[in-house]
Amino acid sequence: MNAPLKTSTALTDMTLVEAADMVARGETSSVALTAAAIEAFKTKDAKVNSLIWMEEQNALETAEALDRMRKAGRITGPLHGVPLAHKDMYYQAGKPCTCGSAIRKDFKPTYTATVIDRLHGAGSITLGGLNMAEFAQNPSGHNRHFGHCHNPWSLDYCTGGSSSGSGAAVAARFVYGALGSDTGGSIRLPASICGVTGIKGTQTRVSRYGVMPLSFSADNVGPLARTARDCARILSVIAGADPMDPTAATEPVPDYESLLDGDVRGLRIGVPTNYFFDNVDPEVGAAFEAAMAVLQARGAEIIPVTIPHMDAVVTYGSIVSRCEGATIHAQWMRERPDDYAVHLNARLYGSYAIPAVYYVEALARRGAILKAVAAEVFGACDVFATPTLRYKVPTLLETDIDAGTEGAIEKFNAISINTRPINYLGLPSVSVPCGFDSNGVPIGFQIQGRPFAEGRVLKVADAYQRDTDWHARKPAV
Amino acid sequence: MNAPLKTSTALTDMTLVEAADMVARGETSSVALTAAAIEAFKTKDAKVNSLIWMEEQNALETAEALDRMRKAGRITGPLHGVPLAHKDMYYQAGKPCTCGSAIRKDFKPTYTATVIDRLHGAGSITLGGLNMAEFAQNPSGHNRHFGHCHNPWSLDYCTGGSSSGSGAAVAARFVYGALGSDTGGSIRLPASICGVTGIKGTQTRVSRYGVMPLSFSADNVGPLARTARDCARILSVIAGADPMDPTAATEPVPDYESLLDGDVRGLRIGVPTNYFFDNVDPEVGAAFEAAMAVLQARGAEIIPVTIPHMDAVVTYGSIVSRCEGATIHAQWMRERPDDYAVHLNARLYGSYAIPAVYYVEALARRGAILKAVAAEVFGACDVFATPTLRYKVPTLLETDIDAGTEGAIEKFNAISINTRPINYLGLPSVSVPCGFDSNGVPIGFQIQGRPFAEGRVLKVADAYQRDTDWHARKPAV
Repeated sequence: MNAPLKTSTALTDMTLVEAADMVARGETSSVALTAAAIEAFKTKDAKVNSLIWMEEQNALETAEALDRMRKAGRITGPLHGVPLAHKDMYYQAGKPCTCGSAIRKDFKPTYTATVIDRLHGAGSITLGGLNMAEFAQNPSGHNRHFGHCHNPWSLDYCTGGSSSGSGAAVAARFVYGALGSDTGGSIRLPASICGVTGIKGTQTRVSRYGVMPLSFSADNVGPLARTARDCARILSVIAGADPMDPTAATEPVPDYESLLDGDVRGLRIGVPTNYFFDNVDPEVGAAFEAAMAVLQARGAEIIPVTIPHMDAVVTYGSIVSRCEGATIHAQWMRERPDDYAVHLNARLYGSYAIPAVYYVEALARRGAILKAVAAEVFGACDVFATPTLRYKVPTLLETDIDAGTEGAIEKFNAISINTRPINYLGLPSVSVPCGFDSNGVPIGFQIQGRPFAEGRVLKVADAYQRDTDWHARKPAV
Repeated sequence: MNAPLKTSTALTDMTLVEAADMVARGETSSVALTAAAIEAFKTKDAKVNSLIWMEEQNALETAEALDRMRKAGRITGPLHGVPLAHKDMYYQAGKPCTCGSAIRKDFKPTYTATVIDRLHGAGSITLGGLNMAEFAQNPSGHNRHFGHCHNPWSLDYCTGGSSSGSGAAVAARFVYGALGSDTGGSIRLPASICGVTGIKGTQTRVSRYGVMPLSFSADNVGPLARTARDCARILSVIAGADPMDPTAATEPVPDYESLLDGDVRGLRIGVPTNYFFDNVDPEVGAAFEAAMAVLQARGAEIIPVTIPHMDAVVTYGSIVSRCEGATIHAQWMRERPDDYAVHLNARLYGSYAIPAVYYVEALARRGAILKAVAAEVFGACDVFATPTLRYKVPTLLETDIDAGTEGAIEKFNAISINTRPINYLGLPSVSVPCGFDSNGVPIGFQIQGRPFAEGRVLKVADAYQRDTDWHARKPAV
């Protein structure tokens, strides 16, 4: 006899791993989870605006089929029956894929991203496409074409971007997890700001076939979900070599979830003495220190580290992503510049004047810089941690460049000041919720490890979440 | 009883393979070959000016040691006892490495290039460093710092560059072979113009560790020698994966020499209908046609092919190598621009203004273009052949930009018009002598194959050389 099915609200409150495991055990059904998610979007998303499109009927039919399969004794994978929705930039043959833009408003790709195929292969259901910054190019969550995405904790505030809808929908308990993408912080910022967990892997850890490109030297695909364990489950499914993407790393992919043993005794956590805490907001600083104290109490060692070459990392990182982004958009910028938001258009224009020698230098020095970081930082510690945002989260109005708000550009640019350098370094990085600021908006910290140490950064995040419940709190939407 | 040792002139007239095999059989000694090569440089190089530096004593002592080893029954490899000299840009710990420049005049590297280590491991002797274009950046053979290199067939004429000394010294029978490097034709041009054989492999086929860089997306290391068989022997030694150069291809390296069976029956040789023959000089065109007739007589099929995207290939190829070269020289160009020749300085200056988006586009489209070439060209033929130079070889004076010769820039740039596109495409390409123009200067043609088809292009070159003796003729120096 099965346990009684949970009610709809209780269903959406579960973590992804809980939900998947309950379906696998037959304690709930995929149809129940999917219907609850659809219901949540339909009844609660109006003010949050995390969704761009949804295919209810298709999702429910898939859920029914998966339920029948399970009853027949077949579980297709570790996400069997779990409804997800993704940042609207993952190609699915014949489905919408707006990329948060006017230009791609009616785009229907003819092929499907490898990560979507893998998520489907693992049994998950794709409900639809989530709001995002136009072409994944802002850290705030503004979108003039589909409406700004609003922070479920406090609607006036930014969600963070560019994976705004992913952060908001997971935080608001509409879905159990969502793919985001991260070129300068676009997974970690909305994770931090919306109070969920998000990881970008080592550069090239996850295939980018069928994913809207922004900057091929810095783009990463990764999940946002409630917990580090949820992220581990999704990452284990999507990571790894891909014949369709020759840039995807061939490094073997462990079962990340099996590495989450809570044991951080003796683990050396570096805290940077330079850059990441310059003028840090006191509320952010205090939340970060409290987080380190939690890990220290579990046996980790907190030590100061200096991250070398930070000036070069910041400058080069910006050059690389700007030049690559500008190239991808060159033709549309020639033909229809007015279809871009002002803040994006302005950023792109400036990028066309950057000389190639700067770009070549930025890429050519990358190896040597990463080598120095590996030697100096990871010689001294196993991971290093910093606040994900250095300052308190601003409101949508404060950072609305298009509306001409005074000081908006500075506040807008400051959002990604701590995340962006990690992309140039190519390191795996997970953002974990660790408190709330005095505006009631979440605070997060990010943990970085050596290349391909996704398992280790997730293990630290999971250990932290065993002693804290920031990730378990939910906004009143 | 050994056969009588050959006289000095007869010794230097042998091909590299003949020389190596005679040493291996004990029919001559490494000391005899090395002494003959040293003698040839000392008595005949004054007007050719192919040599920058030589270490006689060291070379003779190494030769003696190799002779003793052979007498003890040990042959270290397929180049045992063979004296070589190389374009002066291959690092050897503690030895000079001028890079043909004033700036590197007194440079002594602290480590040794992988290719030099491999050549030494195969038993060859390095006599010294050969003349070259300043920092490998001209196709003519001019060098204001070490004196121009002169064509051994007719001293007023260019040798071709940038591996000028390599082409001239092999042609003049000073050495059996020499490394050159090829970023836009720098192996194939001096091979063609001096009447020797030279191959650049597929992009990344040969390690570049310890090699002066110019353009990492287009640089190739390869040999110039008398015959395709000589080149095959050297390439088999130097090609292949290298832990010190992660960009070196891991594709297995065959014994190229074993593939030279002379059998081209049924082989489809494409001759481009576009680009490569535009305004071709009639003497060059006639020599090329005669070469195709030789291969046809051996059973090959000559068919017309169109090479797609040639406009893009030419433009993008130039952007890539200019931007990368300008980046490498940025610091020196800031600090000591007057230490560069005028023609080089001018080329570099212009490159600093190229926008990064052009460079990113040039690299980003490379894969798709190569794919189209592979499909359209190599779907129709097995290799394709073109003249190495489209026009007759100019004199040093006609192409002397620094001397202000009228029309020099156009003539100078025209030299590499047929070789440069091959570097952007990254294809293996061998240049083979096929005649002389009315000035008595050699004409050559180049054969291109699919990526990693070095064996096939060498096989065609070798087949051609079985029925011709252009490669066996020698200039009167």
